[in-house]
This record gives sequence, C-alpha cells and structure tokens, in this order.
Amino acid sequence: MDTIVLGTVALDNVKTPCGMRRDLLGGSAVHFSMAARFFTRVSLVAIVGKDFPSRHINFLKKKGVNLDSLTMDPGETFRWEGSYEGDLNSALTLHTRLGVLSTFKPFVSETQRKIGNIFLANVDPDIQEELLCRMRKPRLVGLDSMNYWINSKPKSLVKLLKRVDIYVANDQEARVLSGENNLIKAAKSLYSLGAKMVLIKKGEHGVLFYGRGFIFSLPAYPVEKVVDPTGAGDTFAGGFMGYLSSSRRIDSAAIKKALAYGTVAASFNVEDFGVSRTSRLTRADLERRLAKFKRCFSF
Amino acid sequence: MDTIVLGTVALDNVKTPCGMRRDLLGGSAVHFSMAARFFTRVSLVAIVGKDFPSRHINFLKKKGVNLDSLTMDPGETFRWEGSYEGDLNSALTLHTRLGVLSTFKPFVSETQRKIGNIFLANVDPDIQEELLCRMRKPRLVGLDSMNYWINSKPKSLVKLLKRVDIYVANDQEARVLSGENNLIKAAKSLYSLGAKMVLIKKGEHGVLFYGRGFIFSLPAYPVEKVVDPTGAGDTFAGGFMGYLSSSRRIDSAAIKKALAYGTVAASFNVEDFGVSRTSRLTRADLERRLAKFKRCFSF
Repeated sequence: MDTIVLGTVALDNVKTPCGMRRDLLGGSAVHFSMAARFFTRVSLVAIVGKDFPSRHINFLKKKGVNLDSLTMDPGETFRWEGSYEGDLNSALTLHTRLGVLSTFKPFVSETQRKIGNIFLANVDPDIQEELLCRMRKPRLVGLDSMNYWINSKPKSLVKLLKRVDIYVANDQEARVLSGENNLIKAAKSLYSLGAKMVLIKKGEHGVLFYGRGFIFSLPAYPVEKVVDPTGAGDTFAGGFMGYLSSSRRIDSAAIKKALAYGTVAASFNVEDFGVSRTSRLTRADLERRLAKFKRCFSF
Repeated sequence: MDTIVLGTVALDNVKTPCGMRRDLLGGSAVHFSMAARFFTRVSLVAIVGKDFPSRHINFLKKKGVNLDSLTMDPGETFRWEGSYEGDLNSALTLHTRLGVLSTFKPFVSETQRKIGNIFLANVDPDIQEELLCRMRKPRLVGLDSMNYWINSKPKSLVKLLKRVDIYVANDQEARVLSGENNLIKAAKSLYSLGAKMVLIKKGEHGVLFYGRGFIFSLPAYPVEKVVDPTGAGDTFAGGFMGYLSSSRRIDSAAIKKALAYGTVAASFNVEDFGVSRTSRLTRADLERRLAKFKRCFSF
C-alpha cells in the first residue's frame, strides 16, 4: 500500500569528524523516502525553491518517489548546516535558512488524498495537522517532531498526538514533552496523552517501543565507522513506516519486524554523507543486514 | 562448575531519588554472588573488618555463598557512600573509606585454588593479578575494573588483560582505556590489547559484546521504576559468568544466553536498594523475566 510523507526537502551543509560536504540533498522527507521505497510507493509532500537542482528532482523520480505533491516556489530551498563531534550522537545546528519553508502550505493532489499510510515528519505541527485534515482515509498515521516545536507549540503538538497512531521521538524529545526522565515512564506518559503507540529513538543505543500492553526494545545495529548521522532518525522512520504500510496487519509481530527494518536502514544511512549510502542500497543489502542483525542478539 | 569471585564486600550508604539507605550490604563480590548463585557454587575472596555484622555473614552463607576465603581483619569494613540523580545512569561517589581493603592480600583456601571459573571484580589490578597467580586451573577468567585503576595503574591493567578471557567494562571505562569514542572500535582495541572477549556495559542502554569474529548487542530489560542502580554491573557479571560457568561449552550460543541472564539479573537488582531484590529472587523469577525479555525484541 502507498505511503505519503510530509516533511522537508533540504540542501544540507554537514561537517563531521570524517569530513565536510556542501549542498547535500537532505531533509526528513528525502531520508524517509530512501528507506520506505523498498516496501511501499512513496509520495512526498514538501516544498523546494527555485534554486533546487533539477538533478535532485530526477534522482528522486528515479528512486520511484512520486513528486506530484512537491511544490516548487520562487525563493530559496530550505537549508540546514550542522556539525557533529565526539561520539556523533547529537548534531550542533550552526545555521538554518527556512526559505520557502516559512510560507509552506501543504498541497496534496486529489488522488493522493486517499493514501492511507501517512507520515508527518518534523515540520510545524499546524502544518502537520493541516495535511492530516486533507487526508481522506487514514489507516496508519505516524508523527515526528523536534524540540523546537515541543517548546514553541506544545499545545498544537499534544492536540495532534490524539490523532496519530505512532508518535516517533528521540529520547531527549520524549523526556522534554513528557517531563519524565525514565524513558518507559516517558513513553507511558506520551501514550496517555493520546498516541496509540510511542517509538523512542535512542541513536546508537537503539529504540524503545511502547504500545498498549507491550514494550519492545532493540539495540542499534553496531556500526563501526559512523560518517554522518544526519537523517538517521528519518531513515529509521522510513524503514519502519514503509514496512508497516506493506503489512496487512499492524500487530506486534509486524511492529517488531518494522523496528528491525528501521534499525537496519538507519545503520546504512550513517555510513556515508547524506543519502550517498541509502540511495545505492538494494533490498538484498537490507535483507542481508537484517539477518546479521538478528544473529546479533537472538538467543 | 564452581566460580570464585575476588572483589569487595562493603557497607554502603546510598541516596537516590527514591530515598536513602545506610549500612547496606554491598560490594562487587556480594552483588556478583547474588546473581551467580543460581547457576554455580560461588566462593568469595574478599576482606571485611571487625565491624562487619554477623547477620550479613549468616545471610551470605544462607544464600549458598562459600566464605572459606573471606578474611576478617581488625579494622573497619570498606565503606562506600554515593548518590544518584536524574536518570540514575551514573553514581556520584561522595565518600570512600577503604578500611581493611587498603592492606588486603587475597587469601584462597587450598581447595578453592582449583576452581576454574574466576571473576576478578573491581579491585587494585595488582591484587587481581596476585589472585590469578594463585589459581591452578583457570578455565574462564573474567576481569572488571574502574576508571580509578585505568588512570592510576594502566600498565598493570593492560598486562592483566592479556591473561583474561573476558574483560568487562562500562562504556566510559572502555572509551578511556582504549582512547576510542566509538564503542565497537573501543571493543576491538581492547581485544587487540589481549582480552579474548570484551563486554561493554552501557547501563540502561544494554550491552555490547565483542569476540573474534562476532559482535552481540542486547538492549537492557526495560525497568520503569529504578530505585537503586548500585551493583547492577556486578549483578550483570554474576548472571553472565554464572551461566558460563555452568555451561559446558563457551560458544556464541552460550555467550548470548549468558548476556541475557546477566541483563535480566541486573534488571532485578535496580528495582530495590542494595541486594533487597536480588536476595529474594528465585530461579523461576529469572526464567520468567528471561522469557519476557526475549519477547521484547525477538522478531
């Protein structure tokens, strides 16, 4: 089944201990798509500026991403500049230029309004809600956010939580929004706010998943050479939501498998800058690493 | 098969967000024993002072711990005072009084010198080596240490590494001793220093295990109410070494299972102060939680 993702398409400048790259194709919707495409047809709702290189458009199309709902506006594409140090667990944002994102109104083509699997990647929660309102037959709705919105629009975010199936947060965000230090308590608190399931991403420490009556926990896939973690969380979400979109039932077995696919997809993402690694990925690569991952801890 | 553990027997004062306790029975050898006893007969090599309450002696005996090599000296028992805040991931040591530990020479009874499974819990590496030299038939040797010794006696520690099968460290210690930030690189580096296997404990984030040609990774068992993490690492080591001591073969399947037992044992330890929870534990409790743990992530 199809999946629609609302998020950013960006041009990134990234500096890590492994080097520096400028004008990388990035953004949450792009990283999401690179992993989700293995399981589902992905439609992208986002905005770019006039400066957005046509080679990136062609690249995305070639990867099977439907761009019918990609808006191109006069003005500049959203740009993010960040750097990583030490253990590469958290990015230091050096510069953000919103450009066309500052006036973004999500457009969805008529056909795409019927897509059932919806992922609201990190943008203004009001824009996320706007998109959700346009969708006609939500089957599975995932929501991501970030500290900036948790701090500036907590009410909008909490309101939105009640309408989603899966809230995806990193550990810090989960702690801030819930006010709980212990991650299980944080997950429970976010669940009680209305999210039917809560997925907490812990970077190199894996993920914690909480739903009614079940908790899952997965370590990260051990990656020795982390080159650039930008987009790892979105890639995770792409593998996770992508697999669930393709699954007939959303039960605990499907969720565990989806978490494993998300983990493995994210592990590829960090091995190179931007989408360099995930864009070259094959389904066979994914499956091979999934099998290896399973051997990593099954006992 | 039997296991011998060299370590501390202590009286602890602990403060956590859940409360404060004084004169708790603690120490690495004690916490280790509480978990290892389910799999193996445990003999303890340690020292206590004249002030050590006889009820603790009786308690340990009742739990099946062999105290033939426990020295009692005039002077005071080793005392540790610490507190935890926030996410309870790291202890703040407020006070340490070495007491009899400052002149400790490990004594091993003649019979016990033949014990094959040896765990050198965190004490001065020179004392660890001294004990190892006395042992006649090492089959499986585990080594733990801490930042204090890594900084003050790195040479002794590295020399010792070459003689052990499994080096157990927490993430911070592994990073400091290896000089590597990435934990897999750290594990590889410690392996290249001579430890045949490296076990890195990451607290609430689980463990990473590295041996020749294999890496395992396990999340922690999700515990909602962490009361007191003191001794969690030693409890982990007890479950881990205990299971391996009882296993005929030390192969990858046995190691994974041992890691799982260690994880589960440690999860009980943090649920109450000192050994309050682990001392009441039954094998059935362990097995039940192990099954639950497995369901937590097997896919």
